[in-house]
Formats: sequence, C-alpha cells, structure tokens
Amino acid sequence: MNDQNESRLERGKRALAAIDGAAGQNVIDALEDIAPDFSRYIFEFSFGDIYSRPGLGLREREIATVAALTAMGNAAPQLKVHIEAALNVGVSKDEIVETMMQMAVYAGFPAALNGLFAAKAVFAERDLP
Amino acid sequence: MNDQNESRLERGKRALAAIDGAAGQNVIDALEDIAPDFSRYIFEFSFGDIYSRPGLGLREREIATVAALTAMGNAAPQLKVHIEAALNVGVSKDEIVETMMQMAVYAGFPAALNGLFAAKAVFAERDLP
Amino acid sequence: MNDQNESRLERGKRALAAIDGAAGQNVIDALEDIAPDFSRYIFEFSFGDIYSRPGLGLREREIATVAALTAMGNAAPQLKVHIEAALNVGVSKDEIVETMMQMAVYAGFPAALNGLFAAKAVFAERDLP
Amino acid sequence: MNDQNESRLERGKRALAAIDGAAGQNVIDALEDIAPDFSRYIFEFSFGDIYSRPGLGLREREIATVAALTAMGNAAPQLKVHIEAALNVGVSKDEIVETMMQMAVYAGFPAALNGLFAAKAVFAERDLP
Amino acid sequence: MNDQNESRLERGKRALAAIDGAAGQNVIDALEDIAPDFSRYIFEFSFGDIYSRPGLGLREREIATVAALTAMGNAAPQLKVHIEAALNVGVSKDEIVETMMQMAVYAGFPAALNGLFAAKAVFAERDLP
Amino acid sequence: MNDQNESRLERGKRALAAIDGAAGQNVIDALEDIAPDFSRYIFEFSFGDIYSRPGLGLREREIATVAALTAMGNAAPQLKVHIEAALNVGVSKDEIVETMMQMAVYAGFPAALNGLFAAKAVFAERDLP
Repeated sequence: MNDQNESRLERGKRALAAIDGAAGQNVIDALEDIAPDFSRYIFEFSFGDIYSRPGLGLREREIATVAALTAMGNAAPQLKVHIEAALNVGVSKDEIVETMMQMAVYAGFPAALNGLFAAKAVFAERDLP
Repeated sequence: MNDQNESRLERGKRALAAIDGAAGQNVIDALEDIAPDFSRYIFEFSFGDIYSRPGLGLREREIATVAALTAMGNAAPQLKVHIEAALNVGVSKDEIVETMMQMAVYAGFPAALNGLFAAKAVFAERDLP
Repeated sequence: MNDQNESRLERGKRALAAIDGAAGQNVIDALEDIAPDFSRYIFEFSFGDIYSRPGLGLREREIATVAALTAMGNAAPQLKVHIEAALNVGVSKDEIVETMMQMAVYAGFPAALNGLFAAKAVFAERDLP
Repeated sequence: MNDQNESRLERGKRALAAIDGAAGQNVIDALEDIAPDFSRYIFEFSFGDIYSRPGLGLREREIATVAALTAMGNAAPQLKVHIEAALNVGVSKDEIVETMMQMAVYAGFPAALNGLFAAKAVFAERDLP
Repeated sequence: MNDQNESRLERGKRALAAIDGAAGQNVIDALEDIAPDFSRYIFEFSFGDIYSRPGLGLREREIATVAALTAMGNAAPQLKVHIEAALNVGVSKDEIVETMMQMAVYAGFPAALNGLFAAKAVFAERDLP
Repeated sequence: MNDQNESRLERGKRALAAIDGAAGQNVIDALEDIAPDFSRYIFEFSFGDIYSRPGLGLREREIATVAALTAMGNAAPQLKVHIEAALNVGVSKDEIVETMMQMAVYAGFPAALNGLFAAKAVFAERDLP
C-alpha cells in the first residue's frame, strides 16, 4: 500500500476510502465546519502513516482496533465505523463476534455486550444474515 | 482445541499452558494462597471456554488481547503475560510492535509508549534481538 | 443458592432470574441472534459461578456492582440493569443514591451525576416515589 | 472571587452561576428529586472550594476541564456543560477546538472526535458561526 | 457519626482516623509539603460530608469503594488504603476477596487479578493468615 | 513556531526540545531499539503538527495535557514528562498543583492524589522549593 511518489495525504485518503469506506467519509464530512485540519491528520497520520505500514495485515489491524474500542467502551461511533471497516477488509461476522466475546475476559461483560450490540446494529444496517 | 470428552477445566489448563506458558503458570501460583477458585475460573472460562472456541485463530486472539490491554493502559502485568503469549502462538516481534504503534491512534501516544516499553522488556528477558 | 446436583447453567439461570429479573432476560433475548453462546457464559460464569458463591451477600454484591459501573462510567445499559437488580435483592433507593454520591470521591462528579440520573430514570420506570 | 464573610454555599452558587450559567442550573434542577444534597456538594466543593481558589485563572481552569472530560470520553453531558462554561469565561471557539484536537495525542482520535462533535453541537445551539 | 456542633473538618478528621487509620494519615502527611489544602478537602468533603452520611453503613461504603477502585484499575495506592479501611470497619478478608473476584465480570480478569494481589500484599503486611 | 520551509520533522524536533527538554529526549532514546519510527511520529505529529499550531498558547497546551493525564490516571511516566514540560513553558508550580486538585472534581480524589505525588517527585528532582 506504499508508493514512494505518493504524498502522505494522498496515501491516507486512498487507505481510508479502501478500509473505512462510506462510514469513514461521513466522519470527514462532519468535521468540515468544525475542524477541517483534523480530517487532514486522520488521513495523514492514522491512514497515511499507520495503516499503510507493511508489518501487519489489514485484517489483523482491524481485529486489533475492534478489540481495543470494544474494551475501552467509550467510543461507540468509532467502534461502529471499525466494525464496518473490519468487514470491508475481510474479517468475517463470526470473527468480529469472537473478538468481542473475548473482550469479556479483559474488559468485562458490559464492554463485550455493548460491542456485540453495536455489531448487531451494523450487521442489520448492511443486511447481513 | 476442543475435545468433547475433556472437561472445561482440563481443556483450560491445556490451553493456558500452550498459550501463556510459564508466565501464565506464575499467575496461577500467585493466586494459590489468596483466591484459588479464581485460578479455576481463569482455566475454565478464559481458556476452557473463550480461547478454545474455534471461530478465531490464536494469533488473531493474541493480537486482539495485546491491542486491548495496550489501549486500556491499566494492566501492565497482564500485558506482559500476553506479549509472551503472542510470541508463543506465532505473532512476530514486529507484529506486536505494529499493534502497539497502532494503538496511538485509538488510545493515545502514552498508552502506545507504555505498551512498547513493556514489549521491549519482554523481548530483552527472552533475549530476542 | 447452591445445589450440588444442579448444573452451572441451571443454577445461573435461576440466579439471573431472581436477581436481574426482566431486565436481565431482555439482555439474553437481545443476544439470541448475534451471540447465543454469550448468554450461556453470562448464565454459567457470571451467575452460576460468581453470584452463586456463598461468601458475600447479594445486597453487598449489588452495591459493589452499582459502585463499579457508576465509577467506570462507560456501561450505561448495564448500570440500569443493576440498579434494578439492587432493588430486587433489597437494596433501598436511598442506599443506591448514597452509593452513587460516594463515587464522586473516587471517580469524579460526572460519573456520580450520570449514575444518579440513571437511577432517577429506573425509579421513574418502576413508579417509585 | 473570595469573600471572607460569604459561606461556601453562597460563594459556590455565585461561582456556578457565573461559570456554568444556565447549563449548570439545569443539572442542579434535575437533581432536585433524586439527590438534592448532591447539588449542595457541587456548589460547596466544586465551585465554593475548587473553582474559587485564586491560584489559577478561570480560562485555564475551563481549558483543563474540557481537556480532561474530552480525554476521559465517558461524560458527554458534563463535557457539553463545560464547553459552554469555557465560552462563558472567555475561552474562544478556536481554543476549545485546539484543546480537543490536542487530546488525540493523549487519549486517541476517537476521544478527540467525540469532543469535537460535542463542541459542534454546543456552538450550533448558541448560534456561533 | 454526626454531631451538629462538630465542624466538617473535625468530623472528617475523626471519620478518617476511624476508617482509614494509619494508612489514611500517611496520605495526609505526604500532602503536607505539596498541597496541604487538599488534605483539608479530603477531611471535609470525603470524610466529613460523604462517609459521615447516615444512609449507608460503613461496611457497605467500603465494599463499594473497594469494588470501584478494583474495577477502575488505575489507583493502586488508594486501593490498598481502602483494603485496610474495609478490614478496619469489619469487612472480612473473604468478603474483600469475593468483591474483587466479582469485578472480573464487570471490569475483566486483569482488574480483578491486580485487586487480588493488592489484597494479598495488605493481608501479608497485617500478618493475617 | 511555524516556518514554511521547515519540514514537519525538523519543526517537531525543535518543538519537542523546547517543550519537553531532556525528559522528552529520554523517551526518544528509549524507543531507538524497539520502535524508531514511533519517535518520528512523536516528532512529526505530536510536536510538528499539534503543538506547533498557532491557535492555543503553550502554557494552555501544557495545562490541558497535565489535566488530561492526571484525570486518565494510567500514564504516570508521561504525566511526569509533562509536569516538566509545563514548568519549561512557564506554568508555575502552584498552577500545576491547582490543575491537579481540580481534577478531583472530574476524575476523583485518587487521580488527583497520584498527580500531586508525581508533581512532588518532579519538583524534588528539579530542586524546586
């Protein structure tokens, strides 16, 4: 996902579109009138720098993010964006559910439950069985 | 990792030994004189139930746990146990480092830094280059 | 609450019904199509193992849970379930309010306020004066 | 803001009105039928004791509170009250936005994003451009 | 524990001495040269106001505090002070251990484990079997 | 602090040296053999992007960071670095202490206490009265 001649901004925009899809673009749009520079940092740092690094696959990266946001339990909108992102890069519904159930061990049952119900909502929006 | 004739306790003991190794056994030993039943729950629920489920690979499970504990930032001893566990199930040093750097995006740079320094300590203890 | 001939699942189902009542059953129902196994773990581990242990009274257990969920501040639906559970096992409205006010000392005024407003909502739903 | 002949309660009421304005009074009103003593502690301790101390300016105090509540990410209603309070004591919209973007470094992008969207909502309610 | 003619400060000092004992006094002493006013707030608000309220017993109050600090997992020194305080007001070793094991359900196994090991250290310091 | 012809990396290195001083450089040095790219992100994003933005003064930025890290309560080493940084950019000892005491209102007394004791340690290391 790296191209030496591509700027961090271009690389990040491409990565965000490929990974987060429409859910990611909605966040960028919502920032337009409050903090447009923050969109640039999301593109450049989060996606142009971090997600574009070669050392870890995108499936693993999204499992890590879904796990962390489920465990932290205080970022519901971002968790939903990354449940979508996980599906976009090939993580299966079952793997998402397994990741969340496992978080009961590390962050307690409430965190796992709230993650599972977020997943249920995203799966329903995408009409997944 | 499932065997219908094996009890949850036996299955959990086998899974904990295979995944956490000596670091896991140290935790069990330390519980002996304060809360031995809690060891049983770790064996039965965490390892006999959750880690023994077939829907997600052990590499992905440990990446998820390392991500969550790094992001939560309040469980240093357990993070070190799971850096070891990740190495034990085939996650590379580089993948652990990548997972932790990614947590800067979701939980901030201090959480990522403290994770990286825990990894540095574990790698040194295991004499990894 | 222990019966040697009862399975963990049966014991947990009985304990959850007695403690959490309808609010607990709603959680179980909502899990049906996303993670039915997780219901089993709630029954078996949370209620069949932990809440069924003899060493601490149910009143104390629910005060502990209400305190913890108020302090953590990131599990609003589960806090409401346990405000109901506390009432079900004989914790008074006043004791719930006292527990939450005390959390201002340990987790700050916002956590205590959000707990108090959750209690206000539950009391209103149950038509308590 | 200190007057030796003023009680902590009077001093706190005056400080809360000056700093939090209508948003603070709404919280006090909502506590009336659930925990009126808690209002007294908010007046006396939070505002009569802490905010009335001379060693730090009100602008700095509100920047500190907005930063902390944004970083903690689990107290959305109180964050909105303090975005209002920050505006009331002379923190500019831009300074609030800068404070929140900075929290991405210490608590991650989701915490910063949720802070920015809370600010966007408050600015819109107050009809700020 | 209320005496109308006693000041909040006197009442708080008496309550802190009775509940936290030497461990509480150590905290007060350590604050002497950095923030002596903060000692006053601990006496007045935490102990003179909150712990002196009649609506909840001291045993329940300490169980609530031990539960919350175990679940939050980021205040090890204060958790140890309150394990001592719990013992001082008549909570048994077993009840403390039960409270901590229960936190595995709400805050995860690492939080419970770190609580149990803090209890083990306190029990050892006090030479409890 | 912006110079159009300066790279983000150069700008960030200059800002980190000016703000965090030796304490910041120690972090960079410790990352050398585990995650050198992460040092680059700290220079480029945290200091080259965020701290170099003109919309908020450095004093306010450090008060915000000290407040957030004190409230979060899970990043002790970084809190100490930023107590030093606050002193470096002109925040007084008293203002740091006030910021921390205020965090008792938003994150509880344990978080404030642990912040105050971190400040006491840093002041002692720097031989401040």
